[in-house]
Amino acid sequence: MGLPASSAADAARVLLSADLRGVDSHGVARLSGYVRLWDAGRIQTNTWPFIEHETPSTAVVDGNAGLGLCVAPYAMQVAIVKAAQVGTGWVSVHNSSHFGIAGVHAMMALPHDMIGIAFTNASPLVAPTFSKDRMLGTNPIAVAIPAGEEPPFVADFATTTAANGKLEILQRKKESAPLGWIQTQEGAPTTDASALKQGGALLPLGGDREHSSHKGFMLGSIVDIFSGVLSGANFGKYVPPFPAYLAMPSFMPGKGIGHFFGAIRIDGFRKAADFKKDMDTWIRDMRAAAPIHPEQTVVIPGDPERTETAHRLQHGIELMEEVYDDLQLLAERFKLAL
Amino acid sequence: MGLPASSAADAARVLLSADLRGVDSHGVARLSGYVRLWDAGRIQTNTWPFIEHETPSTAVVDGNAGLGLCVAPYAMQVAIVKAAQVGTGWVSVHNSSHFGIAGVHAMMALPHDMIGIAFTNASPLVAPTFSKDRMLGTNPIAVAIPAGEEPPFVADFATTTAANGKLEILQRKKESAPLGWIQTQEGAPTTDASALKQGGALLPLGGDREHSSHKGFMLGSIVDIFSGVLSGANFGKYVPPFPAYLAMPSFMPGKGIGHFFGAIRIDGFRKAADFKKDMDTWIRDMRAAAPIHPEQTVVIPGDPERTETAHRLQHGIELMEEVYDDLQLLAERFKLAL
Repeated sequence: MGLPASSAADAARVLLSADLRGVDSHGVARLSGYVRLWDAGRIQTNTWPFIEHETPSTAVVDGNAGLGLCVAPYAMQVAIVKAAQVGTGWVSVHNSSHFGIAGVHAMMALPHDMIGIAFTNASPLVAPTFSKDRMLGTNPIAVAIPAGEEPPFVADFATTTAANGKLEILQRKKESAPLGWIQTQEGAPTTDASALKQGGALLPLGGDREHSSHKGFMLGSIVDIFSGVLSGANFGKYVPPFPAYLAMPSFMPGKGIGHFFGAIRIDGFRKAADFKKDMDTWIRDMRAAAPIHPEQTVVIPGDPERTETAHRLQHGIELMEEVYDDLQLLAERFKLAL
Repeated sequence: MGLPASSAADAARVLLSADLRGVDSHGVARLSGYVRLWDAGRIQTNTWPFIEHETPSTAVVDGNAGLGLCVAPYAMQVAIVKAAQVGTGWVSVHNSSHFGIAGVHAMMALPHDMIGIAFTNASPLVAPTFSKDRMLGTNPIAVAIPAGEEPPFVADFATTTAANGKLEILQRKKESAPLGWIQTQEGAPTTDASALKQGGALLPLGGDREHSSHKGFMLGSIVDIFSGVLSGANFGKYVPPFPAYLAMPSFMPGKGIGHFFGAIRIDGFRKAADFKKDMDTWIRDMRAAAPIHPEQTVVIPGDPERTETAHRLQHGIELMEEVYDDLQLLAERFKLAL
């Protein structure tokens, strides 16, 4: 696609990291989707992201219509450099595109003894509490926190009850979804996993008002405002779609998709060694909390992905046939060995 | 209690702001609780909070065992000054106590055209997904974001499905709670609103694993780590209780309760006027989103509290009889006119 080698390496690293972590929905399965966005002229591969405006601890990065998989590591690096200089760094990005798996960007901070944060907005699939309109994306929050002898705490989650990928799996298996995951086009609760395809909406974390879906709505809103409004990207219902066959919104108040990154130097607060010792205690206490069922203990954020990574590094990454076929087509088109 | 006049004014402002916003659980109803903590020697009124360590954008504040209602405004002010200087300010606090209503601290940033953030940890009442042990507090998240012609976006919510105050109301009315709010001491789902008093636990936002309570657990954990571990306060199951009649934890890895504050200068990213114009669009779009039931439209975070404030400024604040009696006893003790 004409990306500089270093950018291509960034993109490959981000996609493969998702596959290694077991997040197949954000791995090489998406590669052909990015290529289609490039074919449609919605992604440029011959531009560089740049800092448009900055203070010692903040910056706005213009993604220059580039591939989010490369824009995100650049912006996160800007945040890390600022944190090294003044304690924290915060970067809001506009004019970008889908950045892949949020957690991997946040994790860039870990080797520097920093906490890493990554948000992104996304095309609207989520209805606010009380509405039937799709007004927000699944807008994930990722926070990576270093520990000492224990592995890092890595949270990475959509601000909806269930991510879209889980619904797709249910659709493929022709199974129904729990109530509280989705609603119909009219806003009625439903267990029909295909309701989203029929004009329905994903529900904010909480699922319904009685279970505080307004809190999930607030979380998704905060991610949207930090990523979209603070940067000058599109926000809310105006965020462009990932699938290239979907039309762009007819009105767009900003440029492209928005992201938000943060890096927090631990020793801006206290000695990293002291913090890490306490994080080890925190993690071990949680692991030791009495389980309701003996076989199911508290899950430390990041543990499931680490288990999956260990397994896949040893046994390889299984690809679905459709994904393999997709990659084969790409290999033929770009004259690459698969 | 011997507080300097400026600190007493801060404390009164924070408590009354809660009452004005309709958050009765965090208003003057708590005053006698703070006095009991002082009686028990767990709060000092003759000390000042101070900056223990700092970088241009970060600080750790030692609350000096003071009243959280005064420590929090001090720490938030430090964050605001740092944001004025270098774009953002981030302050983690240890050796503090219950800081009252989170949202009011976050809102201190608004007149400066800054986004304000306030977290606090709290004594353990919440069980992580899969556990029956109380390992986290209700650990609220407050984010206040300025708008232009529209009022500000003010989110302020516990990271549990339901706050403890809501359960107390159900208990008083002898009504049952929805499934997903609490579990019994054995970790079984229950609708018994008094289960918490009988050794049960509040549930993280999401309610159960099928509705992603692990995400609520991650949110509460992030608040605990930013407030408690980053500052050197107590964290997780070690956070001291608010009621003075409850024993202090036998082991405490840190000092007091922890908070975390942030201030983000809007023009560290883009012109405040442009941001506010887009925020107005964001808010108006949300208000205009098609409702499921015509009488129930999307709620902008902060709207319910503003409605309540307008009503109470006009009609006064109704106090429950128990609260009035409490205040009367305090007035007699401290020889104050009520």
